[in-house]
Amino acid sequence: MKKVRIALLGLGNVGRGVCMILNSNKEEIMKRSGYEVEIAKILVRDKNKPRGIDVSKELITTDFNEILNDDSIKVVLEMMGGIEPAREYMLQCMDKGKHIVTANKMLLATNGDELFEKADSNGLMFKYEASVAGGIPIINGIDESLTANKIKELYGIVNGTTNYILTKMESEGLGFDEALKEAQDMGYAEADPTSDIEGYDAQYKLAILSSLAFGTKIDIDNVYREGITNIKPIDMDYAKEFKMVIKLLAIVKENNEKLELRVHPTMIPKKHPLANVYDSFNAVFVKGNAVGDLMFYGRGAGDLPTGSAVVSDVIAILRSNIDLENNNSVVKNNLWDRKIADIKEVKSKFYIRASVLDEPGVLGEITAILGKYNVSLRSVIQKGDQNEEGNVTIVLVTHTTSQKQIYDSCNEISSLRSVNNIDNIIRIEDFKN
Amino acid sequence: MKKVRIALLGLGNVGRGVCMILNSNKEEIMKRSGYEVEIAKILVRDKNKPRGIDVSKELITTDFNEILNDDSIKVVLEMMGGIEPAREYMLQCMDKGKHIVTANKMLLATNGDELFEKADSNGLMFKYEASVAGGIPIINGIDESLTANKIKELYGIVNGTTNYILTKMESEGLGFDEALKEAQDMGYAEADPTSDIEGYDAQYKLAILSSLAFGTKIDIDNVYREGITNIKPIDMDYAKEFKMVIKLLAIVKENNEKLELRVHPTMIPKKHPLANVYDSFNAVFVKGNAVGDLMFYGRGAGDLPTGSAVVSDVIAILRSNIDLENNNSVVKNNLWDRKIADIKEVKSKFYIRASVLDEPGVLGEITAILGKYNVSLRSVIQKGDQNEEGNVTIVLVTHTTSQKQIYDSCNEISSLRSVNNIDNIIRIEDFKN
Ligand SMILES: NC(=O)c1ccc[n+]([C@@H]2O[C@H](COP(=O)([O-])OP(=O)(O)OC[C@H]3O[C@@H](n4cnc5c(N)ncnc54)[C@H](OP(=O)(O)O)[C@@H]3O)[C@@H](O)[C@H]2O)c1
Ligand SMILES: NC(=O)c1ccc[n+]([C@@H]2O[C@H](COP(=O)([O-])OP(=O)(O)OC[C@H]3O[C@@H](n4cnc5c(N)ncnc54)[C@H](OP(=O)(O)O)[C@@H]3O)[C@@H](O)[C@H]2O)c1
Repeated sequence: MKKVRIALLGLGNVGRGVCMILNSNKEEIMKRSGYEVEIAKILVRDKNKPRGIDVSKELITTDFNEILNDDSIKVVLEMMGGIEPAREYMLQCMDKGKHIVTANKMLLATNGDELFEKADSNGLMFKYEASVAGGIPIINGIDESLTANKIKELYGIVNGTTNYILTKMESEGLGFDEALKEAQDMGYAEADPTSDIEGYDAQYKLAILSSLAFGTKIDIDNVYREGITNIKPIDMDYAKEFKMVIKLLAIVKENNEKLELRVHPTMIPKKHPLANVYDSFNAVFVKGNAVGDLMFYGRGAGDLPTGSAVVSDVIAILRSNIDLENNNSVVKNNLWDRKIADIKEVKSKFYIRASVLDEPGVLGEITAILGKYNVSLRSVIQKGDQNEEGNVTIVLVTHTTSQKQIYDSCNEISSLRSVNNIDNIIRIEDFKN
Repeated sequence: MKKVRIALLGLGNVGRGVCMILNSNKEEIMKRSGYEVEIAKILVRDKNKPRGIDVSKELITTDFNEILNDDSIKVVLEMMGGIEPAREYMLQCMDKGKHIVTANKMLLATNGDELFEKADSNGLMFKYEASVAGGIPIINGIDESLTANKIKELYGIVNGTTNYILTKMESEGLGFDEALKEAQDMGYAEADPTSDIEGYDAQYKLAILSSLAFGTKIDIDNVYREGITNIKPIDMDYAKEFKMVIKLLAIVKENNEKLELRVHPTMIPKKHPLANVYDSFNAVFVKGNAVGDLMFYGRGAGDLPTGSAVVSDVIAILRSNIDLENNNSVVKNNLWDRKIADIKEVKSKFYIRASVLDEPGVLGEITAILGKYNVSLRSVIQKGDQNEEGNVTIVLVTHTTSQKQIYDSCNEISSLRSVNNIDNIIRIEDFKN
């Protein structure tokens, strides 16, 4: 049996998962890869931290050079996270002819090009399945299995924390804060949950998926982002009334030769497969011009699911017909140039919830303004009693219209004397085009 | 741009889909594969049949030798179906150093070994994504993305015709015959629907999936098979009452070091992701020891979805680091030896529907017999009025028990004077182990 020596940068959640899998599935991995995989070194910050897994002390180091300068190490797994020194370490490893597997979405979304180019120019493999949706093989799916397709649209539930929170709000009627607290208690949300609940994490992942699916460079700033902190139980109730659910979706669509890139809470029909993705599960729904509708569903995070993606990437490197001594990888993707749509022009259906004075003529004033901006309404709902301030809630659902039209008209609407506040605006996606 | 010449065996549904994709997605395919793909020849039975697509007459031939003996043809796509001459043609092509892509589930399920061995010994690639679940990349998923896992269980809705029929029965209360008729009118079922409704098609696919997932040879006769013709609207009604739905599942599980292989109608909880796979859609649900629960969902048949899988396989061959002139593919999977469980010993929960005389003591007699065979009951339902013959329906739901215990006890139960008939026995899968 051939042997390959690998190094791990990082022994946190993902690193630990990788160690456990390499250990417990040793026999499978040998049979499938044709190699005995040996961990040569593991880089950490703190040598004395208890690791909770069975790893020989001698493997652990805080000196990156022990890995960089060991020519017997052929594959390096980056599971540290963050931009630096992860970026610098990977670049240096590639200059030494080491293949890379990484789970680092933030780095890929912001500095991906540089890393891909270095891999290409050195004939190396660079794999990153774990960076999006953990154990779900969506990167491989797009990169290997949907290659015959023009991908037209992609919709992802790619953040488990927010999906867990929205599930709790939907099924148990919790408020956002309560649901977040529960997610934190369950270990699904971090002490500082900003990256998840404000949609940054999903934004990174969408940038990675879109650049792969559309063969183009995506500047993260071109991805519109809106988090879930503004969703209220009453919005959940209205969604239910419309036979819809609210999900944080990462969406990319090609429309008139432009890419729309956006992360935002979205009302989708209860019957759609994405609507039935609950708790901390993730899913990615893709429309290809040949394959039609396709969905991948599974665990988006966690030590073992994420480790599964990392180790499968390692096996893919070992099984490729690459000569590990001579680095002859020839797989190169030519990049397309794609135009990005301005979010203001991106069209959608919208749900608008407002609190207004309970007096005759209010609705007339509102619809007059919407008419002026060419926003046409599909339905209007007003029910329930006045609150203490004499306001009632109305909900408007529009036909397809641009964000600019909505924002401009809502701006004008909120300046009406009879309108107390526009409380929420949520996009509706019914998957019909 | 490099050029590669390929040949198509067959220009039916799948072959036509492949031609359309090669044509409409030419640019994507070039960028992704690095090759211009040229169709050199297409083999058919009848040269004069109208083909309904734009294909040059000169390409079409009825003489296989024009393909076999053309050394400039490097990849052959088999989309004829049937055992012979598909088997003989593929073997001969591989002896001439041609890589193979096939959609032929029947041939793979019965003669797969011989074909895989020939490919291995000739250093050739042999790809068959289209053979299971059409456009869903489940073969690639298992073969490339889940390699770090021990797969523990796999559940597939892999036949679109039966899923369409069961969906119609569930949602519109149709009887089996009516629903079948509708499936035929819609073009989802063939004039002779036996292969679909009796579960043969699913049996082939399960054999292919299982041998890949468990790295072993599967004799098709070891796959237990039961069709859906016995499902009645009343069974659908009871399922609904239990918050379940009935699906034709192809199941493989590893239990006590043995593989259970079975295709049969199954009651599953409405909340499970597989329960929400409707119409002619397919899905495959996999449990891996690292990745956890994973599901792939999409179109299991049709010219373009199936063509998408075939063309993606072609691109995978072109993108591999294989030297098309020298056939140096080195990917070989070692086979494991796996024991297959005897279906009689396979355990499950069961739903039993019987018609019995409406008189005191019947239930006592039945439960006494079940007790004798150590079958324990979870619930018993009797309701509704006598029919003309004085019979009433009772439904029994058991705890986990072996098929042998169920069949033996039901045999004895049906010989009771007070029992008119055991009308149906359906397995229940609640995905808890
Ligand atoms: N957790 C998930 O489920 C998941 C899912 C998908 C992707 N990812 C990605 O995977 C990566 C790792 O995530 P994680 O959850 O495993 O993180 P983590 O638990 O914080 O672990 C990070 C590890 O990297 C080490 N490390 C960090 N900076 C270092 C430095 N400058 N020098 C040496 N070692 C350093 C740490 O060492 P010490 O242990 O000594 O502190 C620790 O072992 C991130 O990019 C993350 O986005 C995670
Ligand atoms: N249809 C689907 O959605 C689907 C999905 C997954 C897998 N598959 C598999 O794909 C394969 C093809 O299916 P299909 O639906 O495309 O079948 P089809 O429509 O019946 O087409 C078969 C083609 O093969 C040609 N052919 C058959 N026997 C031949 C022979 N002895 N010599 C030369 N040509 C021959 C036929 O020629 P003529 O046209 O001259 O008769 C026809 O063009 C089957 O293995 C099937 O199981 C199909």
